Amino acid sequence: MHRYRSHTCAALRKTDVGSTVRISGWVHRVRDHGGVLFIDLRDHYGITQVVADPDSPGFKLAETVRGEWVIRIDGLVKARTEDTVNKTMATGEIELYAQEIEVLSAAKELPLPVFGEPEYPEDVRLKYRFLDLRRETLHRNIVKRTQVISAMRREMGAVGFTEYTTPILTASSPEGARDFLVPSRIHPGTFYALPQAPQQYKQLLMVAGFDRYFQIAPCFRDEDPRADRLPGEFYQLDLEMSFVTQEDVWNTMGPLMTQIFEEFAEGKPVTKEWPRIPYDEAIRKYGTDKPDLRNPIVMEAVTEHFAGSGFKVFAGMIASNPKVQIWAIPAKTGGSRAFCDRMNAWAQSQGQPGLGYIFWRSENDKLEGAGPLAKNIGEERTEAIRTQLGLGDGDACFFVAGEPEKFYKFAGEARTKAGEELNLVDRDRFELCWIVDFPFFEWNDEEKKVDFAHNPFSMPQGGLDALQNQDPLTIKAFQYDAVCNGFEIASGSIRNQSPETMVAAFEKVGLSQQDVEDRFGGLYRAFQYGAPPHGGAAFGIDRIVMLLVGAKNLREISLFPMNQQAQDLLMGAPTPATPTQLRELSIRPIPPVKKD
Amino acid sequence: MHRYRSHTCAALRKTDVGSTVRISGWVHRVRDHGGVLFIDLRDHYGITQVVADPDSPGFKLAETVRGEWVIRIDGLVKARTEDTVNKTMATGEIELYAQEIEVLSAAKELPLPVFGEPEYPEDVRLKYRFLDLRRETLHRNIVKRTQVISAMRREMGAVGFTEYTTPILTASSPEGARDFLVPSRIHPGTFYALPQAPQQYKQLLMVAGFDRYFQIAPCFRDEDPRADRLPGEFYQLDLEMSFVTQEDVWNTMGPLMTQIFEEFAEGKPVTKEWPRIPYDEAIRKYGTDKPDLRNPIVMEAVTEHFAGSGFKVFAGMIASNPKVQIWAIPAKTGGSRAFCDRMNAWAQSQGQPGLGYIFWRSENDKLEGAGPLAKNIGEERTEAIRTQLGLGDGDACFFVAGEPEKFYKFAGEARTKAGEELNLVDRDRFELCWIVDFPFFEWNDEEKKVDFAHNPFSMPQGGLDALQNQDPLTIKAFQYDAVCNGFEIASGSIRNQSPETMVAAFEKVGLSQQDVEDRFGGLYRAFQYGAPPHGGAAFGIDRIVMLLVGAKNLREISLFPMNQQAQDLLMGAPTPATPTQLRELSIRPIPPVKKD
Repeated sequence: MHRYRSHTCAALRKTDVGSTVRISGWVHRVRDHGGVLFIDLRDHYGITQVVADPDSPGFKLAETVRGEWVIRIDGLVKARTEDTVNKTMATGEIELYAQEIEVLSAAKELPLPVFGEPEYPEDVRLKYRFLDLRRETLHRNIVKRTQVISAMRREMGAVGFTEYTTPILTASSPEGARDFLVPSRIHPGTFYALPQAPQQYKQLLMVAGFDRYFQIAPCFRDEDPRADRLPGEFYQLDLEMSFVTQEDVWNTMGPLMTQIFEEFAEGKPVTKEWPRIPYDEAIRKYGTDKPDLRNPIVMEAVTEHFAGSGFKVFAGMIASNPKVQIWAIPAKTGGSRAFCDRMNAWAQSQGQPGLGYIFWRSENDKLEGAGPLAKNIGEERTEAIRTQLGLGDGDACFFVAGEPEKFYKFAGEARTKAGEELNLVDRDRFELCWIVDFPFFEWNDEEKKVDFAHNPFSMPQGGLDALQNQDPLTIKAFQYDAVCNGFEIASGSIRNQSPETMVAAFEKVGLSQQDVEDRFGGLYRAFQYGAPPHGGAAFGIDRIVMLLVGAKNLREISLFPMNQQAQDLLMGAPTPATPTQLRELSIRPIPPVKKD
Repeated sequence: MHRYRSHTCAALRKTDVGSTVRISGWVHRVRDHGGVLFIDLRDHYGITQVVADPDSPGFKLAETVRGEWVIRIDGLVKARTEDTVNKTMATGEIELYAQEIEVLSAAKELPLPVFGEPEYPEDVRLKYRFLDLRRETLHRNIVKRTQVISAMRREMGAVGFTEYTTPILTASSPEGARDFLVPSRIHPGTFYALPQAPQQYKQLLMVAGFDRYFQIAPCFRDEDPRADRLPGEFYQLDLEMSFVTQEDVWNTMGPLMTQIFEEFAEGKPVTKEWPRIPYDEAIRKYGTDKPDLRNPIVMEAVTEHFAGSGFKVFAGMIASNPKVQIWAIPAKTGGSRAFCDRMNAWAQSQGQPGLGYIFWRSENDKLEGAGPLAKNIGEERTEAIRTQLGLGDGDACFFVAGEPEKFYKFAGEARTKAGEELNLVDRDRFELCWIVDFPFFEWNDEEKKVDFAHNPFSMPQGGLDALQNQDPLTIKAFQYDAVCNGFEIASGSIRNQSPETMVAAFEKVGLSQQDVEDRFGGLYRAFQYGAPPHGGAAFGIDRIVMLLVGAKNLREISLFPMNQQAQDLLMGAPTPATPTQLRELSIRPIPPVKKD
């Protein structure tokens, strides 16, 4: 028989009854039922119940084992009696009658219980991560994470992508977030950088003639810790394709991600045909470029119904500024004064002056708009609004007014708030979409200049001609995001692979051709020697896994995360370097600069 | 029709004749055959021959295109005439008659030709790597590399392994090679390290209850450049298993690697049943722990035949020192004075006093040993040696004498030399084996103390008892290498997961329990809380790919390698950091210390 096991702890079935077998694993828990010991033995695969009574040869030893000891048990497989069968366990029809027990590794008193998964302080969990990871939920999440990534690899391969790994010791990228630097020993005073993303390398791969690249890519950003971001490294499903338009990227990746979501959604519905929503439309309808489409509320402009109306606040704003719009946030089933007042109070708590509303109710068989606004604008306008929005008895509508670019974020939050409060959001589904046609530039009000809105490497719609002849703030980019349930899960674009167009784009933000050469020399040089049209995207793996397992915290889907102070409490990092190391790297630590 | 292509450059066949199609790609070469232009258009997938004659609508433009321009061509698929069919090309039965040509991206004059692949200086290749990678052989090698890695993932999954990714920003490991360090911004004066290997993390994964781990793992060592080592990063197929003996690792990974080798060996034979050769035996037979088993020469001790013989040099050595042995290197077909003298001269060029030999030839139907040694020891002893080694007419044998631990390396080199010179090595095969039972400790003659011979985390054979009661230099470890054609392709061991045994092992090399806690705290702590028996290995992916594609240089199988001065000439790394970056990281570059 094998030294440690003939079966895993998930393998034994009724058909094994009568066999003598060997299993090894961790003592999940021990129960003493009047002199008979029940040991739940656990391994990666499952749990088997072991029974030892005083007649068992191993009983004496069995009495000494404690939780999380690693033991080997030889025993006889017995059928459980009808009333002790556990249908929720794969091995629930049998139990193992212990004949011999060997302690493979004892455990000291546990700083963190595994069985039962009670709440425990974060720092203890991270320091004893090897115990934390034995918890059923965390173990399951991590395994699911590996399965999601494995499915991504499988499906990318199935549609003709090849996985290429790009360098991790590379050049500092002057745009974007803060780099992690690595001192060079051989070239004193110089540094490598860890890649924030393989953006430039994947584009170089296309220029080098490889066609469909992907990579489960580690990315590194030295950003300040935030609740929804782990310090240090994160993973992207990074991809790039040559000779494609943006529709090719959408038509390839949409169905692929739908399939992956469906594989792990445990029956929850997943969007099959992803809507393609232009950025401007997303802002107008949802007040955000990351709309949660599970929320059925769609905002609409109702400016005309307030222009010249008896509600003087809105009417006056409209009259004095042509940019002013009134947006309606229709809220089905929200038609009670109590709810409307609650929303109003919430708006005030968000620093808003308030949230105007109308709600509809039937009075004497007549549908009537109620609330101060309805009174002010009168029955006809109220009815016109109701008809436009398709509302009825028991529904409400909230209004925000002003220049959309100033209020749209709040309007979007109010939409979310109303949808959640009224339980209009169907939580048990995955709603996916593309947000497309992002603006290429944005106005930097501080520096009074035009900046890139997103990726400077994207191709502006209209190309060189648009850059030369169009108001830059009206130029859209071939740039898109994928959004799931209100979270951005991917970003991508068709790249600007023309050196002239690249230089023209950078000139708009105040950078010269020399700047482009200095900062992106590798890529700029490559584009001079036959660069194919190309584009791609990068999907955030951590976020996708969080959505799929329903985790709220990144630490529930990460194997060995650092804490929020960017420390690895398990391995003890970061640590001071030795004098020899510092000397070899030609660097010296200096006292930190005090922050103002 | 699609914006860029209806077919790839490898897709068109005779069945497409008559279709109007669109292809895009790079101009591989242009030939002008008396006013008719032939353009070989190349993409990731293959090459299609395009024809443009003066009647073609795109002819004027076709005349302007040059090598490595990216163009789109619409055209009519025509069958080639019988005598112009190219059977070596997938698209060799057709050609595309150009109707419309669009230049997607022109190319400046090339610093490096792609077509024909002439030799070019390394620094030009690396600076213009995106051109270098378009070369047919390099492109093919890189694609094969991705296929090998993909096959590894597939096969590891098929035998129950799961891929887990471990942190890249981690703790400095005080044993082993030099770490790359990453300054922490948040904790001034401290550093992360990039992992030399995920050794500790994979063991922690086992302690955390995951069972069969693998990872295509990036590893980082800041070592001085060497011909057979790229600076910076390299990849391992890293794996670990719980509840296993070393036989389980061999029985799992041997057949799996055989299958992967066979998949890419293009018909060359691959060892099916890997011999398991104890370290001591490998040294004795092959003079190395990385034997090339394609070389049929097996060395044998022939000490007894020289003891007390007429060859006074050897006889005297044997008489004066019981450690002295005489090893024979039998060299079939080497039986000529010319060859033996050449081997002798080679040995002298290696700093040896010479290489004694006997060779056999038939004189008057009688097999006779020739050369000075044969004369000195006489016919009977010469014949005994010949019989022991199974040699015959036309064969030779070389002899090395002394204490084996001092001469075995040279003896191994002489074996290799003889095998190669005599063409005894069958180059068209992959000979794989396990080298097992490595010594656990070795003698450090400089410091006059015992050191770990290999991995300090390995389990010593005999465990705690052996450490307490056995001469440490006689203790073997459950430690093994995989070797292919004379190259180490993997190293592994069963781990020492017992805290007591771990401390006892480190005490032998002069380290205390406190040292173990300080240096390997995470792992040592983990072993206190229920650690399963576990073991594994790490296979060197770069080496395996080199063997499979027959590459001599790591740069021929790496995508974006650094040069031998650890510089990325393409992206321009490493570079000085900005004053802001240095300030944020609380470090200051200092002038390098001059080496003695």
